[in-house]
Amino acid sequence: MEQHLYEPVHEEFRDLCRRFLTREAVPHHDRWEADGIVDREVWRKAGAAGLLGMDVDPEYGGGGQQDFRFNAVLDEEIVAAGCSGLGFGLHNDVAAPYLTDLTTDDQRKRWLPGFCSGDLVTAIAMSEPGAGSDLAGVRTSAVRDGNSYVLNGQKTFITNGEMADLVVVVVRTSDQGAHGVSLVAVETGAPGFSRGRRLAKVGLKANDTAELFFDDCRVPAENLIGTENHGFYHLMGNLPRERLSIAVAAVAAAEKLLAVTLEYARSREAFGRPIGKFQHNRFLLAELDTEVTIARTFVNHCVAEFNAGRLSVTDAAKAKWWTTELQNKVADRCVQLHGGYGFMLEYPVAKAWLDGRVQTIYGGTTEIMKEIIGRGLGL
Amino acid sequence: MEQHLYEPVHEEFRDLCRRFLTREAVPHHDRWEADGIVDREVWRKAGAAGLLGMDVDPEYGGGGQQDFRFNAVLDEEIVAAGCSGLGFGLHNDVAAPYLTDLTTDDQRKRWLPGFCSGDLVTAIAMSEPGAGSDLAGVRTSAVRDGNSYVLNGQKTFITNGEMADLVVVVVRTSDQGAHGVSLVAVETGAPGFSRGRRLAKVGLKANDTAELFFDDCRVPAENLIGTENHGFYHLMGNLPRERLSIAVAAVAAAEKLLAVTLEYARSREAFGRPIGKFQHNRFLLAELDTEVTIARTFVNHCVAEFNAGRLSVTDAAKAKWWTTELQNKVADRCVQLHGGYGFMLEYPVAKAWLDGRVQTIYGGTTEIMKEIIGRGLGL
Amino acid sequence: MEQHLYEPVHEEFRDLCRRFLTREAVPHHDRWEADGIVDREVWRKAGAAGLLGMDVDPEYGGGGQQDFRFNAVLDEEIVAAGCSGLGFGLHNDVAAPYLTDLTTDDQRKRWLPGFCSGDLVTAIAMSEPGAGSDLAGVRTSAVRDGNSYVLNGQKTFITNGEMADLVVVVVRTSDQGAHGVSLVAVETGAPGFSRGRRLAKVGLKANDTAELFFDDCRVPAENLIGTENHGFYHLMGNLPRERLSIAVAAVAAAEKLLAVTLEYARSREAFGRPIGKFQHNRFLLAELDTEVTIARTFVNHCVAEFNAGRLSVTDAAKAKWWTTELQNKVADRCVQLHGGYGFMLEYPVAKAWLDGRVQTIYGGTTEIMKEIIGRGLGL
Amino acid sequence: MEQHLYEPVHEEFRDLCRRFLTREAVPHHDRWEADGIVDREVWRKAGAAGLLGMDVDPEYGGGGQQDFRFNAVLDEEIVAAGCSGLGFGLHNDVAAPYLTDLTTDDQRKRWLPGFCSGDLVTAIAMSEPGAGSDLAGVRTSAVRDGNSYVLNGQKTFITNGEMADLVVVVVRTSDQGAHGVSLVAVETGAPGFSRGRRLAKVGLKANDTAELFFDDCRVPAENLIGTENHGFYHLMGNLPRERLSIAVAAVAAAEKLLAVTLEYARSREAFGRPIGKFQHNRFLLAELDTEVTIARTFVNHCVAEFNAGRLSVTDAAKAKWWTTELQNKVADRCVQLHGGYGFMLEYPVAKAWLDGRVQTIYGGTTEIMKEIIGRGLGL
Ligand SMILES: Cc1cc2nc3c(=O)[nH]c(=O)nc-3n(C[C@H](O)[C@H](O)[C@H](O)COP(=O)(O)OP(=O)(O)OC[C@H]3O[C@@H](n4cnc5c(N)ncnc54)[C@H](O)[C@@H]3O)c2cc1C
Ligand SMILES: Cc1cc2nc3c(=O)[nH]c(=O)nc-3n(C[C@H](O)[C@H](O)[C@H](O)COP(=O)(O)OP(=O)(O)OC[C@H]3O[C@@H](n4cnc5c(N)ncnc54)[C@H](O)[C@@H]3O)c2cc1C
Ligand SMILES: Cc1cc2nc3c(=O)[nH]c(=O)nc-3n(C[C@H](O)[C@H](O)[C@H](O)COP(=O)(O)OP(=O)(O)OC[C@H]3O[C@@H](n4cnc5c(N)ncnc54)[C@H](O)[C@@H]3O)c2cc1C
Ligand SMILES: Cc1cc2nc3c(=O)[nH]c(=O)nc-3n(C[C@H](O)[C@H](O)[C@H](O)COP(=O)(O)OP(=O)(O)OC[C@H]3O[C@@H](n4cnc5c(N)ncnc54)[C@H](O)[C@@H]3O)c2cc1C
Repeated sequence: MEQHLYEPVHEEFRDLCRRFLTREAVPHHDRWEADGIVDREVWRKAGAAGLLGMDVDPEYGGGGQQDFRFNAVLDEEIVAAGCSGLGFGLHNDVAAPYLTDLTTDDQRKRWLPGFCSGDLVTAIAMSEPGAGSDLAGVRTSAVRDGNSYVLNGQKTFITNGEMADLVVVVVRTSDQGAHGVSLVAVETGAPGFSRGRRLAKVGLKANDTAELFFDDCRVPAENLIGTENHGFYHLMGNLPRERLSIAVAAVAAAEKLLAVTLEYARSREAFGRPIGKFQHNRFLLAELDTEVTIARTFVNHCVAEFNAGRLSVTDAAKAKWWTTELQNKVADRCVQLHGGYGFMLEYPVAKAWLDGRVQTIYGGTTEIMKEIIGRGLGL
Repeated sequence: MEQHLYEPVHEEFRDLCRRFLTREAVPHHDRWEADGIVDREVWRKAGAAGLLGMDVDPEYGGGGQQDFRFNAVLDEEIVAAGCSGLGFGLHNDVAAPYLTDLTTDDQRKRWLPGFCSGDLVTAIAMSEPGAGSDLAGVRTSAVRDGNSYVLNGQKTFITNGEMADLVVVVVRTSDQGAHGVSLVAVETGAPGFSRGRRLAKVGLKANDTAELFFDDCRVPAENLIGTENHGFYHLMGNLPRERLSIAVAAVAAAEKLLAVTLEYARSREAFGRPIGKFQHNRFLLAELDTEVTIARTFVNHCVAEFNAGRLSVTDAAKAKWWTTELQNKVADRCVQLHGGYGFMLEYPVAKAWLDGRVQTIYGGTTEIMKEIIGRGLGL
Repeated sequence: MEQHLYEPVHEEFRDLCRRFLTREAVPHHDRWEADGIVDREVWRKAGAAGLLGMDVDPEYGGGGQQDFRFNAVLDEEIVAAGCSGLGFGLHNDVAAPYLTDLTTDDQRKRWLPGFCSGDLVTAIAMSEPGAGSDLAGVRTSAVRDGNSYVLNGQKTFITNGEMADLVVVVVRTSDQGAHGVSLVAVETGAPGFSRGRRLAKVGLKANDTAELFFDDCRVPAENLIGTENHGFYHLMGNLPRERLSIAVAAVAAAEKLLAVTLEYARSREAFGRPIGKFQHNRFLLAELDTEVTIARTFVNHCVAEFNAGRLSVTDAAKAKWWTTELQNKVADRCVQLHGGYGFMLEYPVAKAWLDGRVQTIYGGTTEIMKEIIGRGLGL
Repeated sequence: MEQHLYEPVHEEFRDLCRRFLTREAVPHHDRWEADGIVDREVWRKAGAAGLLGMDVDPEYGGGGQQDFRFNAVLDEEIVAAGCSGLGFGLHNDVAAPYLTDLTTDDQRKRWLPGFCSGDLVTAIAMSEPGAGSDLAGVRTSAVRDGNSYVLNGQKTFITNGEMADLVVVVVRTSDQGAHGVSLVAVETGAPGFSRGRRLAKVGLKANDTAELFFDDCRVPAENLIGTENHGFYHLMGNLPRERLSIAVAAVAAAEKLLAVTLEYARSREAFGRPIGKFQHNRFLLAELDTEVTIARTFVNHCVAEFNAGRLSVTDAAKAKWWTTELQNKVADRCVQLHGGYGFMLEYPVAKAWLDGRVQTIYGGTTEIMKEIIGRGLGL
């Protein structure tokens, strides 16, 4: 079904992404999975290729395109290439707006050139062992001490956590619940900042999800991002973009799973005919194809609305939960259609099933999305 | 979520429809349900108001708008008003193209003025007791005899069947399976044409679904619509429009059910608070709201693509099954949310549940839609 | 699959039930549906045949069998015969224990002979317009005045409400929430007791569900059933039996729907073969057959446990929601398998779909069942 | 809910199993997972403890109990202990009957003592790269040559494949489709018999699933098991027992997942209260608890029927697909309830989700089960 979202310039960028991934990521990804982390170098290569900071001001080396479609294209291609270790989406889609919209001129000058060149990998650390869904419950504290903030506490499940040169840390600067949260940038080398174990995960094996520790960790006061005690609202303002990013990846993942499985269902034979020809399977694939088409139509509409500044918190929540639940359903059904092969790690369908499972969890769980939508309905 | 399909001119037409229904249909609908049929007069009033033949050439009294959005608006408003007895959708969305696109000049002059004025109510008779899903299996025969066709056979489940002045009858003119099917117009008064029982249905109580009998029924040869033995292809060409029409009504029905139930869930109390505030119900309503938003986005995209001549048979099939299954799910969940009241006929939610059940059945069942989509996938 | 619950004596009773229904109910049921109520006489005939009060002491004319399997057999046969107008289940399974276990000798003498002969039809009135799920919220009051109780308030959705000679009314006798509820028997002719409209329902058309009004309604103090202010606990004690009764009917309904639809799927042809041979339908029927078998196994286990005095409130809640949700799923899928015929009232599948919809609502909604189970899990 | 299947003697055996696993398997399982295979020694220890061949004649060192409840107890305890690497279920439940019921006296004497002592680990090799669901399509051939069979072909996905001392290989001995299949025992050391890669799987990491190759592999003719060309019927006769075994494990896995997650949901807090107290989660857990109770009731009934010789092929198919689909649903929901922790390998819920996914695939896929049931319905 024709969609009319992307224009030729985006398709050119897609080509660029695809060539980059084929050359710089795909051949190394198995090794990265074994290592549990990607090569540091691939970030710099991505920067050089123009894949980091597409919407950052050209004065800092960014692409200067206020158009989320470029982000979406890169997210889609990373998924299509199966390069789930690359945390570019976190960097471009999630971290970027904090660094571009909430920062001072000075901060921008310090951070954005590295952000765009790949010299400064970013992470954003909200979740703690005791506070995931309940963001307002974070306990990592930052206390002003002269010209510094002194941080104490722990973060967990941080994407790019081990490699990140700059982590936007959500801290408590006052005990006023949601009104006492701030964002502070912690850079590699800050005294009292250490990283814990690389976490052993079900999927996303090449991504360095990590624990972070702050033990009287001292950072300059000018590392505050945005307004003190307004961190919660800064987060709220940016979460729709994060959720849209996840939704875009979810639809791309579902499309790829479906394509791979259609191919399999057309060629694998049982009882003398392609397994896709059995009506149960034909109907199942028709059902998945329908829902993927619908998801694609919806997420594209969301991207267009986001670009127009109209994507509400509720809309983003709808896109996030529905597409990621669909992704998981598609993955599960596609594993089943592969029979025993679906249980073998070497099959892309197995890896996609593993990688995808977290999508309904991070960035706000399905349950939290429904809370948000329900409240929007006045319930 | 903003949708951008309709323009001011459509919203004006919506107002017109709404006022018409409030005045001419809503006050009578209960009586029509008891009667099992609407007043003949409401058709002429609709014609006068410009609600019939919006895309028929103005030379015949039509609206002259080659824009399915007008059809969609009327379909939506009929659903919103709960006037399920009005078979205008069948007339405007389903029958119209047969009479405008496949007819001779002469036929258009005979039929279209009445079509637009409401003097000529139409029906389309495909299904037979022995052939519903399997259209190519129709057995009602039409044999050329001099300047006439002589029809023998039976049709069933024909919407507007009792009231229709002109029925487009799908007949067998040769024994070549799908290649031997033709369309013949049978008008009231044709010798050998009679109507059977008005069928007692689960819902759509005010619509005259009927059986039709052809017993050596003789019609002039010039009542052939389109090309002899090409009837199956004529049908295939027009089914996407029929299915889109059903999908539009499905989304409107789901939207209305949700609105009514949200209202109920906000005001009905149990255990000291609105039942919509219980998290299970809040999540359920959030889920339904999400899926209805997604369905709305998709069906609007389909309408736009249809207008642009790009809605494929497969796309229409996707829209048809998914939105009607959603409608049924929404209806069922909304009945449940009404508790005992959901089982009482006087509650709109009960009526909507009853009326809606047939949507996954007529116009091609969900199963047939999946067959079509599956074949489109090469399975 | 063999089940081993019923013994020859129950199968003999089944025969008796079946013959009774075939003779005394089936031939009249269509008329009863049109009337909205069954003939008063059928109750007396049932009494004479031994179908009322199977577990009431023989001294009052009962069967004297402390064995719920007899109740279950009758419930199953009523469902199998499609005689949904007969409120015997309410009488035997729901009302009986209040009259046998909580009553004084005197009360038993007054009421049980009529209960068993069919001269005294019973109902139980818990629900009010403002309190359905939230039983502890009933507001109908009973104030002690000398040797009488004076009742004020309204009940709604009362099964057998119009015909009942004795209604066990749940009243408020103190304002202590759940601790201020009592049960009072109100008999036909009590001053200030009147019945409202016979409610127009989606299904169960032959059953007289009604509103009841108490307007300074005066009943003798000896009409108190059980202990004053202990009504809530009396209800809690008996609800498992009510829910088991509903579950038994649900499984019987699902079995019948499946049998009817299997028959249909084997004989109805499309595209040259029985529709049940299409793999999608074959799988669907296999799935339904599996779940019905499982439900049967479970409900039989519950009946055996109930007989042994071991069926917990939680177990009954599980049986109630799961089997009734299954019944609705089976009904919905079977309607779909009937194509257009599934929407025609004359088809048993349509009627079963309509009758069954209330099963997840009355006797405690699915949601309330999950609350109960959830609390049992310490959540 | 009380179940009444097991008697004290089974509970004693359960204690034995539990102590054995705690001592001999649990402490080593992580290492076994890293190794991709369990220690050879644990089999001998299990034999010594009486956990192998519980229903084998004592004359060969077996337990002599013709009672599948002992098998079920061991299966349950292995699941409860999380020791998915132990292929005892395959040995005791699946392979045993081939060796006890179809063998000659001589064969029994050769194989059963080792079978019971753990010196002879078994596997059964049906699946081939080109024939999984379609067992009648196996191509591995066995040609009689003098006093030997000469095997050529390949098997894949063979549980215990690497460790097995004796593999029951399904071979083609004639080209008559299902009528040309035989069973031949291939022992370690047979010339031309080799093993391929240990397959990298999504779960069951400690089990040595392997490929087997037969390259002019020569085995004595007396290694034929059962009747030549009757292999397909031998398999059909034993598959219900295999499927029952899988169903028993599925229910045990679901019970364990639920217990672990209930514990988690009671203690993990968000927004100031245990996450299990949020109604959505409470209802979800109530739903899962209901279905697990129902599954337990059903599988126990199946075990009792199996012991009585009454479990039909259809019944076993019902138990297999329904309980394994339930297991997967429970696992998926429990992962979600764990939030980010559900994606961490160190959490048992994650491992259970991974291990369980294959249950709807091996032993006959869900789809094949539905085929079997559907055919049993005459469809
Ligand atoms: C691979 C991975 C990468 C991640 N990357 C990052 C990152 O880069 N930065 C970062 O800050 N975090 C990251 N996270 C953390 C992630 O955002 C959290 O795991 C997620 O928000 C859930 O929090 P939790 O794990 O504490 O679960 P909890 O909040 O403990 O939730 C447990 C369960 O309770 C449910 N629940 C919670 N509240 C409610 C409610 N009110 N009603 C109903 N149900 C409720 C949840 O939906 C969930 O099912 C990552 C996690 C993973 C696994
Ligand atoms: C209220 C109402 C109004 C209607 N209005 C009209 C009208 O105006 N004009 C008109 O011509 N018809 C009309 N119909 C008829 C309607 O289009 C048919 O009922 C519908 O197409 C299904 O045909 P059937 O009832 O013969 O079912 P069948 O074709 O007998 O189908 C029975 C079941 O088998 C399934 N099935 C059939 N083939 C397959 C397959 N290959 N694979 C899997 N499953 C399959 C179906 O999905 C269905 O579940 C109306 C019907 C109703 C109820
Ligand atoms: C045909 C029929 C026969 C009946 N017969 C009898 C009878 O003989 N005697 C009698 O006393 N009653 C009878 N009833 C009434 C029946 O028991 C009630 O309708 C039922 O208990 C639900 O109450 P309600 O209708 O007030 O719904 P409500 O209690 O208003 O519930 C509305 C919705 O809110 C949900 N809800 C309520 N509380 C919660 C919660 N805490 N969490 C989440 N969701 C919640 C419900 O599940 C439902 O979906 C009958 C009803 C019908 C329709
Ligand atoms: C961990 C593991 C352990 C195993 N252990 C053993 C073992 O010890 N011994 C052994 O012999 N085998 C074993 N197997 C193999 C297993 O039994 C097969 O994988 C399984 O039977 C499916 O076969 P397949 O993989 O070839 O899938 P296929 O048969 O190719 O099936 C692919 C898909 O098509 C579907 N399909 C097939 N036919 C139909 C149909 N008619 N209608 C609709 N859908 C259909 C299937 O359901 C599946 O979804 C094991 C597999 C695994 C993963």
